[in-house]
Amino acid sequence: MKSTSLRLIPLFLLCAAHLSAQNNLQKVTAFRKAHEQQIIAEYLKFVAIPDETKDSVNIPLNTAYIVDMLAKRGIHAELLKPASGNPVVFGEVKFPGATKTINFYAHYDGQPVNPKQWSPGLKPFDPVFITTPIEQGGHIINYTPGMAVDPEWRLSGRASADDKAGIMCIINAYDALIQSKLKPTYNLKFFFEGEEEKGSPHLGEIFRKNKDRLASDLWIICDGPRHASGKKIVVFGVRGDVNMQLTVYGPKRPLHSGNYGNWAPNPGLMLAQLLSSMKDDQGRVTIKGFYDDVVPLSEAEKAAISKIPPVEASLKKELGIAQPEGGDRTLITGFMQPTLNINGMASGNVGAQAANVIPTKADAVLDLRLVLGNDVNRQIQKVTDHIKAQGYYITDKEPTDEEREKYAKIIRINHDAGYNAQRTPMDMPVAQSVIKAMQSTVDYPVILTPSSGGSLPLFIFEKELGAKVITVPLVNYDNNQHAENENVKISFLWEGIETIAAIMQMK
Amino acid sequence: MKSTSLRLIPLFLLCAAHLSAQNNLQKVTAFRKAHEQQIIAEYLKFVAIPDETKDSVNIPLNTAYIVDMLAKRGIHAELLKPASGNPVVFGEVKFPGATKTINFYAHYDGQPVNPKQWSPGLKPFDPVFITTPIEQGGHIINYTPGMAVDPEWRLSGRASADDKAGIMCIINAYDALIQSKLKPTYNLKFFFEGEEEKGSPHLGEIFRKNKDRLASDLWIICDGPRHASGKKIVVFGVRGDVNMQLTVYGPKRPLHSGNYGNWAPNPGLMLAQLLSSMKDDQGRVTIKGFYDDVVPLSEAEKAAISKIPPVEASLKKELGIAQPEGGDRTLITGFMQPTLNINGMASGNVGAQAANVIPTKADAVLDLRLVLGNDVNRQIQKVTDHIKAQGYYITDKEPTDEEREKYAKIIRINHDAGYNAQRTPMDMPVAQSVIKAMQSTVDYPVILTPSSGGSLPLFIFEKELGAKVITVPLVNYDNNQHAENENVKISFLWEGIETIAAIMQMK
Repeated sequence: MKSTSLRLIPLFLLCAAHLSAQNNLQKVTAFRKAHEQQIIAEYLKFVAIPDETKDSVNIPLNTAYIVDMLAKRGIHAELLKPASGNPVVFGEVKFPGATKTINFYAHYDGQPVNPKQWSPGLKPFDPVFITTPIEQGGHIINYTPGMAVDPEWRLSGRASADDKAGIMCIINAYDALIQSKLKPTYNLKFFFEGEEEKGSPHLGEIFRKNKDRLASDLWIICDGPRHASGKKIVVFGVRGDVNMQLTVYGPKRPLHSGNYGNWAPNPGLMLAQLLSSMKDDQGRVTIKGFYDDVVPLSEAEKAAISKIPPVEASLKKELGIAQPEGGDRTLITGFMQPTLNINGMASGNVGAQAANVIPTKADAVLDLRLVLGNDVNRQIQKVTDHIKAQGYYITDKEPTDEEREKYAKIIRINHDAGYNAQRTPMDMPVAQSVIKAMQSTVDYPVILTPSSGGSLPLFIFEKELGAKVITVPLVNYDNNQHAENENVKISFLWEGIETIAAIMQMK
Repeated sequence: MKSTSLRLIPLFLLCAAHLSAQNNLQKVTAFRKAHEQQIIAEYLKFVAIPDETKDSVNIPLNTAYIVDMLAKRGIHAELLKPASGNPVVFGEVKFPGATKTINFYAHYDGQPVNPKQWSPGLKPFDPVFITTPIEQGGHIINYTPGMAVDPEWRLSGRASADDKAGIMCIINAYDALIQSKLKPTYNLKFFFEGEEEKGSPHLGEIFRKNKDRLASDLWIICDGPRHASGKKIVVFGVRGDVNMQLTVYGPKRPLHSGNYGNWAPNPGLMLAQLLSSMKDDQGRVTIKGFYDDVVPLSEAEKAAISKIPPVEASLKKELGIAQPEGGDRTLITGFMQPTLNINGMASGNVGAQAANVIPTKADAVLDLRLVLGNDVNRQIQKVTDHIKAQGYYITDKEPTDEEREKYAKIIRINHDAGYNAQRTPMDMPVAQSVIKAMQSTVDYPVILTPSSGGSLPLFIFEKELGAKVITVPLVNYDNNQHAENENVKISFLWEGIETIAAIMQMK
């Protein structure tokens, strides 16, 4: 709608708006360049604070640091606490004449870390600069404070990309505007969550408790990576997500594989057979009804998808993949479907600690991504029903002796609460404003996608607050998010500051 | 043959022989009782020496300790060294009038340990006494040297059962005989190996280098557990064994399961599908020709098997297994077939470190047990051919970028040398002598079995030395051999000393 009416605006007005935006962008960039050392120093300290969601010792250090960063910019922030769990850091600034409000979201907690899996010299909470990813031949830079930071460098550390980068860009974009005497066009709210990587179990509670304070015309979610082509992207939806933990049981104690081989059931084999029954060799989930409730894409969504530049050829090369799952399906097409991913599986030992035993159990963690139409509980039930149909007795606790005596195949299934997918229509006026603001910062067409592959609990924003939500990812796509050697490319931080500043001033 | 001719010996002679054996047994037992504190103190120190096969720092401490234990009994021992690898401790004693020689084998190296998997308070190389297995409600005993040791207790520690127990029983049986003025009827050799848990890669080399020194009429192998009924057992063969390490590859770096889900192949799924293709849900290996070359059992072997007391009902209860692999097959019947066991598998992380990623690889370690007729290289080839038939490109190294570009399914396969099965006919005279000697120590029928479920490189004894080999297991079957919480029941050590002493004096 807005895109149609735009055609009626005289060309000189468009140009004037464009020139003004360009001018403002230059001021923001100039401010950043002048303050790079302070911005980097502040960010290094931020990433160095351990932030695994469950780390109750260090989580308060993160929130205190964020409150302090906001205070330095003149923003009074406070903690919105759930009955139990990690608080949200919330701040608010009003501007004379502004009638509408944007709420900026990012999260300060990070995924669990296994320091042993990080490359030598890289540590999750001891951030260092690297020339390029270590796996691609990069090396650690002998950085000392005050050194010029090359925008091609990357900063390595847990949450350096996901999602402390969001907080850093939002805060510094605000700083750059205010210090450059540029006025935001919206009242601004800042909402930094601390339980996103655990599935945001208390977000609904915090929303319900603070409904009025959190009211806004739009939430901008800064999370997830930019497009694999490196281009800026606006994401109108996210997949839902839920994790399931499966444990299959063998003998009560580990057994010598010779003295019990061909007699005691092997839980590793049982788990392999079970997981194998869930997907075919094209990666299509074979669980009954798995794709049945997916809402088809609108014509506008299909059109946007068709314009997304192809990335598959370069991704295949970069990732060493000869044949993706699903054959010729594009990456983005796959995002429009639910997934069943094996996050991890384990039974006994491999490598140097491998021993000739029949292990006692085999574990797997599944990640289910959901799309519009899926319901998280229904999706869990489909998987559970499938497991039951394979002859399993299902429990949510360690099996008792009585259960072991009665059932040949026992599985323990646990899952977190999870949440559904969310999607915002692309043609809403406020959506068009965001697109225009972002477009003003680059000279290529910004990519628009109906949904990211990743997940955020945006479903709850709609449900509890009636909010409109648009996601603006800021970081490089090859950031090893959720894994070892997580990193953020410095140029993406700088561009992120520009992106957010443009949105804060959008018409 | 001997059992037939026995019937012709006058009854009073048999009785005299029996009484004499009983008398000698009492002397051995009396000696052990009088020296229990010293024997235990010496054994505690022995088990406390770390002995993983690869532990080149501590292996020499083990051999020095064994040389010292033998020296204290007046036996000069020396090290038989392979060009590289862990040495054999070898000793020899001749007796006037003895014309034949028995060579006693045990091994001092232990399986790899993962201390984290041991129960609280139990450490692989800090042996403690426990009342009964911790998993069965046992607790650690606050033992101080000098305390009376209850024969129902167990000593917990790596190699406490497998197989330092063999060395301890052999050495102390010899000590008990000599100190009680009882004369062994055979010249004795002592051969304590240090690479058994790695598949004895240098045993053939040591045999070839020392063929004359090692000559004997019989090898007695002290390794593996006694029968699950708790009864003494003579084992006339062992299965062969080989390990295969499999690695299946996904993307070159770990990927966010949302941002790449439904596109990047998941190596955990690929491995699950591959392993699942190797066995049916009855545990029968579905690899082509897997059972084709198995030599059928002789009538004598079938008869011996039929007399083995059933253990399945109590094992099922103890191990919490409702339905064994292979349905109604007995444990011992399974021993007569080759196995394919999943020792371990791993991809990504499970538990607290699980993250929403598509992992880069998935590993599995397979253990193949072989029976008479199987050939180790042929067995490996069958598995390899099967994997190839599933569409895999096979390499023995990390895949190159070129290989990754070319092949959708890549697997790295490595394996150790492994060895074939061995079986000694039950009706040889020397076999009958061993049975008689063992029978003299107990008042129930000693169990005879054509083959153990476990493996030892006995094939090489026949091949390199032309040796006859009989296995006499000494330890309790529920010893968690090869796994965490390994333990030996004290009464089995005491009975082991009696068993070996009887064999040293056999007619």
